Amino acid sequence: MRFRIPVVAVCLALAIMAGAQAKQSGGGSAESQLRAQEEAWLKAFQAHDLNKALGFLAPGAVAMAPNAPPAKTQKELHDGYAPLAAPGAKINFKADYVAVSGDLGVSSGPYQLTMMDNGKKVEDKGKYVTVWKKQGDGSWKVVRDIFNSDMPAPGSK
Amino acid sequence: MRFRIPVVAVCLALAIMAGAQAKQSGGGSAESQLRAQEEAWLKAFQAHDLNKALGFLAPGAVAMAPNAPPAKTQKELHDGYAPLAAPGAKINFKADYVAVSGDLGVSSGPYQLTMMDNGKKVEDKGKYVTVWKKQGDGSWKVVRDIFNSDMPAPGSK
Repeated sequence: MRFRIPVVAVCLALAIMAGAQAKQSGGGSAESQLRAQEEAWLKAFQAHDLNKALGFLAPGAVAMAPNAPPAKTQKELHDGYAPLAAPGAKINFKADYVAVSGDLGVSSGPYQLTMMDNGKKVEDKGKYVTVWKKQGDGSWKVVRDIFNSDMPAPGSK
Repeated sequence: MRFRIPVVAVCLALAIMAGAQAKQSGGGSAESQLRAQEEAWLKAFQAHDLNKALGFLAPGAVAMAPNAPPAKTQKELHDGYAPLAAPGAKINFKADYVAVSGDLGVSSGPYQLTMMDNGKKVEDKGKYVTVWKKQGDGSWKVVRDIFNSDMPAPGSK
């Protein structure tokens, strides 16, 4: 009987730690990791490094740009993100909302984008939601990405 | 010493259950709950019950419609969702992607929408991402909602 209470105490501590660990993955540190990963993704676009930017996509990722069906295949994703990393393009985005729970993360905020369209500058600004999934190696990757413009639709009154 | 092993076994079982419980909240049952809540939200729009539909929004929710700044205030959210519940409007959406971890959920899929614009039918289809947060009472509510159209931009070639 001499060992009974200490063993219970140790086991209780283990149980509490298991719970805390599960919670902690939704805490401040995971959000910082997600913010850092999003910033690294932005830097890849800003460096016009399309292949690096595409490397942030998880298998099965779907990108949802306005006025086009969802991009799902490698080619669709490549072609969909290419304008954001093209020479002359300038992009910026920063989450004003980040939520993380376990292996699921969400970031959302405003973006600003300048693209070249037949040598003409096109300025756009809008908002986005990106859904992230923590991968087996602990890195955060994009599973869904959607955005739309704040600007009036072309041709609207 | 006679009780030592049983106590360890019970404590181990408790620790494993604590871990399983933490995982389970991201499992199949939570996803079904989220799908059911999304369907209830859709039904509120389909019943043209705007107030009921607005009741699915969490405090601080932001709705992100195309070609407009994010809707954040009660009035902006009301005015933003009103066309979806208006007389004559027909809306349908169903997630082809649902992810849940703890109190964070995401649903995404295609939508179809028919709206009346000055007595003229406007047909639209596109895709959406909705971010859900489990509330204190256990219900899922919308914290971020964004969509865009699959159709070519008006005036585009």
